Amino acid sequence: MSAIAKTWTLEVSDRERLIKAAFEAREFAYCKYSNFRVGAALLAADGSIIKGANIENASYGGTICAERTAIVKAVSEGTRAFVALAVTTDVPSAISPCGICRQVLREFCALTMPVLLVPSNYDKLVAEGKADGGVLETSIDELLPHSFGPEHLELPRKP
Amino acid sequence: MSAIAKTWTLEVSDRERLIKAAFEAREFAYCKYSNFRVGAALLAADGSIIKGANIENASYGGTICAERTAIVKAVSEGTRAFVALAVTTDVPSAISPCGICRQVLREFCALTMPVLLVPSNYDKLVAEGKADGGVLETSIDELLPHSFGPEHLELPRKP
Amino acid sequence: MSAIAKTWTLEVSDRERLIKAAFEAREFAYCKYSNFRVGAALLAADGSIIKGANIENASYGGTICAERTAIVKAVSEGTRAFVALAVTTDVPSAISPCGICRQVLREFCALTMPVLLVPSNYDKLVAEGKADGGVLETSIDELLPHSFGPEHLELPRKP
Amino acid sequence: MSAIAKTWTLEVSDRERLIKAAFEAREFAYCKYSNFRVGAALLAADGSIIKGANIENASYGGTICAERTAIVKAVSEGTRAFVALAVTTDVPSAISPCGICRQVLREFCALTMPVLLVPSNYDKLVAEGKADGGVLETSIDELLPHSFGPEHLELPRKP
Ligand SMILES: [Zn+2]
Ligand SMILES: [Zn+2]
Ligand SMILES: [Zn+2]
Ligand SMILES: [Zn+2]
Repeated sequence: MSAIAKTWTLEVSDRERLIKAAFEAREFAYCKYSNFRVGAALLAADGSIIKGANIENASYGGTICAERTAIVKAVSEGTRAFVALAVTTDVPSAISPCGICRQVLREFCALTMPVLLVPSNYDKLVAEGKADGGVLETSIDELLPHSFGPEHLELPRKP
Repeated sequence: MSAIAKTWTLEVSDRERLIKAAFEAREFAYCKYSNFRVGAALLAADGSIIKGANIENASYGGTICAERTAIVKAVSEGTRAFVALAVTTDVPSAISPCGICRQVLREFCALTMPVLLVPSNYDKLVAEGKADGGVLETSIDELLPHSFGPEHLELPRKP
Repeated sequence: MSAIAKTWTLEVSDRERLIKAAFEAREFAYCKYSNFRVGAALLAADGSIIKGANIENASYGGTICAERTAIVKAVSEGTRAFVALAVTTDVPSAISPCGICRQVLREFCALTMPVLLVPSNYDKLVAEGKADGGVLETSIDELLPHSFGPEHLELPRKP
Repeated sequence: MSAIAKTWTLEVSDRERLIKAAFEAREFAYCKYSNFRVGAALLAADGSIIKGANIENASYGGTICAERTAIVKAVSEGTRAFVALAVTTDVPSAISPCGICRQVLREFCALTMPVLLVPSNYDKLVAEGKADGGVLETSIDELLPHSFGPEHLELPRKP
């Protein structure tokens, strides 16, 4: 990440309701194996917000993270254009999406799409005067450089 | 499956709206790699219906099927009690969930929960007088016998 | 499963070395999240045995079970014909493959292929005179009835 | 990626045999759905090379990529320390691992571990005098910045 300070990408009102939605989403985590709750909220191009939580599975491999839950919820309702993602957990620092989620987000989101990693103590940090609430703002491209995507399956093949 | 005829498990009105929802769900499939659309609809204990479609990914492994999309949508909204599932595709015969989805359904659904496999020509078959519309009714237990589930992770271990 | 007693499918010598291999495979489990070791051994048509263990991941969803590890090892070395699978864990009872593994096995194995679920106390049970060592012998078809497979993607589609 | 030229990380002999192994590994791809062959080769700390190919599945979601096949092969044989990875496909340009594989590699590999993305026409490029054969050398850290890993599951939680 650049050391140069970023200006916020979203309007303050959108940013605030997206972060709030990520915390609400976290309430419905089903995480009996990890006890690690995650909430995600996607801001769609039409202004709507889609919430996801992590849904774990006894097989472990069948687990679906909060970010992917949010994406498939949206797409299965016909929404495929997104402008931002916020993710939060129970940990008071910025926690990043796993590689699986980065790959699934990549299928639908612009590489420049902002991804907000929100610490669990966001409200406290804001109340203490830390304006950004400790949020780490990154992007799909920063999270998945040299990404593999749909266009690569279309490339001419010369074995 | 038993050769003995099954009586339908659901009330006719629930059965009909669940099957209709599976067809509606199919509309939002994102299946540019397989061109195989799938729609799923879950009937929750509270009477609500949650719809899912298959959402594929360039990595293939990142693909999430219609049935799992429906489950994570429901659970991430706080719904964890289900009474039936219907699944349909573009194929005019009963197509069954993959093993991954069976495993994820197993986490939340009773083993006796009916699963309706609905052929794409269901409406035509009904119109032609085939009362069940060609639906194959099975259950979680029939689809995943000797299933592995949360309780197995709790068993005492004696290596 | 039928209540009728099954005769063993494998020759005793193959059965014994396959079960032994599953226990050896279990030694290399990487299961720091579940602490649930699993070992799997595949008997290939050429008589070779391929061993797999569960390899977990911090993302949970990235976890690959013992059975799938064994299959991809074999296939990536050019072996695609199998005659039996044995699976064991740290639990003194027969534990079954998850649905994900059943699906991946289905791609390469005959539906009639025997799958031996081996309790962790197999040796003790044999020593105590229980000839089958508590092994539950099942098959791909019994584990994944009405299975979804490659041929379904080839079916004519009539949306 | 930095614009500054990188020196090669591996010794020439290791680099050459690792790249050769990735091409050999590709031969065993099972990719009937994508027709996109991938070969991967891991150089272990003990000097051994472990090869993987992509093993697809009718469910799509059950697909395991070449990189993950290589990792689980190695770990299930007791090898957990790696010094480099090479990946090649049928495309004459550098193709990157998917996010799922990046996450699974992350569990076992140092962030600084070199990852060599090898174009399918590597040999031709070398023969034409392009010394690096068109290989793009990157690393786990460059492919999965701000990565999520085992240590994050250990962090104190303050919901
Ligand atoms: Zn994730
Ligand atoms: Zn499925
Ligand atoms: Zn499994
Ligand atoms: Zn991959």
